[in-house]
Amino acid sequence: MKDLNRLDTLDVGYDVPALPGMDEADIQTPCLVLDLDALERNIRKMGDYARAHGMRHRVHGKMHKSVDVARLQIEMGGACGLCCQKVSEAEVFARGGIRDILISNQVRDLVKIDRLARLPLLGARTIVCVDDLDNIPDLSAAAKRHGTVIECLVEIDCGAGRCGVTTTRDVVEIARAINAAPALTFAGLQAYQGAMQHLDLYEDRKAKIDIAVGMVREAVEALKAEGLDCAIVGGGGTGSYQFETASGVYNELQCGSYAFMDADYGRILDRNGVRIDRGEWENALFILAGVMSHAKPDKAIVDAGLKAQSVDSGLPVVHGRDDVAYVKCSDEHGVVSDPEGRLKVGDKLRLVPGHCDPTCNLHDWYVGLRGGKVEALWPVSARGKAY
Amino acid sequence: MKDLNRLDTLDVGYDVPALPGMDEADIQTPCLVLDLDALERNIRKMGDYARAHGMRHRVHGKMHKSVDVARLQIEMGGACGLCCQKVSEAEVFARGGIRDILISNQVRDLVKIDRLARLPLLGARTIVCVDDLDNIPDLSAAAKRHGTVIECLVEIDCGAGRCGVTTTRDVVEIARAINAAPALTFAGLQAYQGAMQHLDLYEDRKAKIDIAVGMVREAVEALKAEGLDCAIVGGGGTGSYQFETASGVYNELQCGSYAFMDADYGRILDRNGVRIDRGEWENALFILAGVMSHAKPDKAIVDAGLKAQSVDSGLPVVHGRDDVAYVKCSDEHGVVSDPEGRLKVGDKLRLVPGHCDPTCNLHDWYVGLRGGKVEALWPVSARGKAY
Repeated sequence: MKDLNRLDTLDVGYDVPALPGMDEADIQTPCLVLDLDALERNIRKMGDYARAHGMRHRVHGKMHKSVDVARLQIEMGGACGLCCQKVSEAEVFARGGIRDILISNQVRDLVKIDRLARLPLLGARTIVCVDDLDNIPDLSAAAKRHGTVIECLVEIDCGAGRCGVTTTRDVVEIARAINAAPALTFAGLQAYQGAMQHLDLYEDRKAKIDIAVGMVREAVEALKAEGLDCAIVGGGGTGSYQFETASGVYNELQCGSYAFMDADYGRILDRNGVRIDRGEWENALFILAGVMSHAKPDKAIVDAGLKAQSVDSGLPVVHGRDDVAYVKCSDEHGVVSDPEGRLKVGDKLRLVPGHCDPTCNLHDWYVGLRGGKVEALWPVSARGKAY
Repeated sequence: MKDLNRLDTLDVGYDVPALPGMDEADIQTPCLVLDLDALERNIRKMGDYARAHGMRHRVHGKMHKSVDVARLQIEMGGACGLCCQKVSEAEVFARGGIRDILISNQVRDLVKIDRLARLPLLGARTIVCVDDLDNIPDLSAAAKRHGTVIECLVEIDCGAGRCGVTTTRDVVEIARAINAAPALTFAGLQAYQGAMQHLDLYEDRKAKIDIAVGMVREAVEALKAEGLDCAIVGGGGTGSYQFETASGVYNELQCGSYAFMDADYGRILDRNGVRIDRGEWENALFILAGVMSHAKPDKAIVDAGLKAQSVDSGLPVVHGRDDVAYVKCSDEHGVVSDPEGRLKVGDKLRLVPGHCDPTCNLHDWYVGLRGGKVEALWPVSARGKAY
């Protein structure tokens, strides 16, 4: 029997889905749960890989937005530091004790640049990307104003089609200007090919990274000829890290999703044609959903809809069951087809989200599970930090 | 020139995108902005409509999750109360002073039922939906335990295909059981047809509601024959409220999106074949996005991606401009095609989100604008309240 007053202790203006020590069966749904054993195995595995291949691993905090997960990646997985996408995220990680932070993105607004320039005062090495000469005076002035140093990477658009310059000439011109600017340090290159990570076939992904590597190598050599060394050549994601590692030109990986896995990434194939969630990585993140209605015999309604997950990359997959399937998602409901009538009200399902990053950003808490018990309750520390 | 220290005053562990009195140009992006004049016109218009037609309007708080917007809808729009989808949402609205709350959904978990039964202690009339006899003893026991009364509507699935029973026999059986249960009151019917709201054509939408009205009328008459009167017959959304109003059997509307509008709703057509966002309702909600990179001449990159909006119902539309278009969305970036190179870094765009409800749920704040100035900063009070 549940202790109905158990949750009252923390019911002071906010909700928690669980408390440490609680049985898995008593968790309030919908919420994010982490299989801590699987998470730790993923983190150790990627750490071992990077170490064995002489690469640094700068884990991507934009995926989980959690100080606790980041610390685990650094302490258990040997990560050299963290990257994230927004200044407000970086502030959370810096305050949480992360000492080496790359904002793998452009920062252009003057208020945001001012906040960026104050990050070193929180104790964090601060690195940012640049793709426009006009950004450099603003970054330099802010760092001077606060007596700090901002390290800058020139961002190359090596196929993602978002930020970044596309010619070696532009790379060199921007790098020179960074090098000449007071309070800035030229630190290398950012070259993340985000558009190929989800291609199904290993060889297709490799072909895209081969193109990226060509661009990056040309830029590194041109910079060297100018006397500008790249301390960091960063990129690589869960769908490509083997290729950047083998390139001989990248020296930092920036993987995120490997730690949690999701349904969309899970479908891509490794070099042997095996889905990457069937051997390479384990599903460690789930949305725990509860059946709340079964008024029609062949479908169950669960309590996890669009406000508990992002469906941009497809619907979630019911983990460990092939007798039921999540077939429709609306704001607060999911329709689960249940042709054999196996489910009943109160049953809980583990859903593997279609896309982990924007799903995690919807929640306030991770419920960490081990051996059927709640072991940890971790805040999604940088949830909603979009500035 | 921006005052770079202006935001420091509130920079104590959380971010705000703006402060009252600030110029629109100084708002931090990405964030949600509300055109307060348009919002107030929408709210008054729906209020006038309901009053003129003798309907109560129970506004849907799941859309905006804002105590401030709900109070405006009650005070300025004459709404009789509010509906929402989760107990944790209802707690926020009750603590915020809303006195009449329907949870237009099933509540089955015992911990949630216990919280539901305590809502009247916060001063709110508490109404919930039921679609299963087995739910009734749990609701009754919890209300008895706390010395409160829970009013119950029987939910009819009149086409949405989610929760709710589908036969009059089931409706009557559940209503009788509610009526017989201690501490519960039978209050009527919930019959929201959610699956037709976004059909383009007015006549197609009408045809679906005609079917719903037939089911509801049969149920109301059967209940009357049992001596069970329906104080509430609730349903109706922004795409259908005229039909429920004309039915002669519904007495409460439950519209949400009319107040803010979004791109997906905006595309549906009124009885004259005109898009409903070109006359019937105004766009009052926007995602304010900033251009942060323009390294390629024909596309601008903005700072609002999947963590600033839900794209389940399509990409956002750039408001008031046909020279540029939002064409691609990734986690933190949007690609805006800019074939004529009109945009520059620092420019701000107003995006009409594809789907307002799950977009609002991503943000912590609404920035209320009037006359080019920030007038209000309202919290998204029930953001993330998914339990």
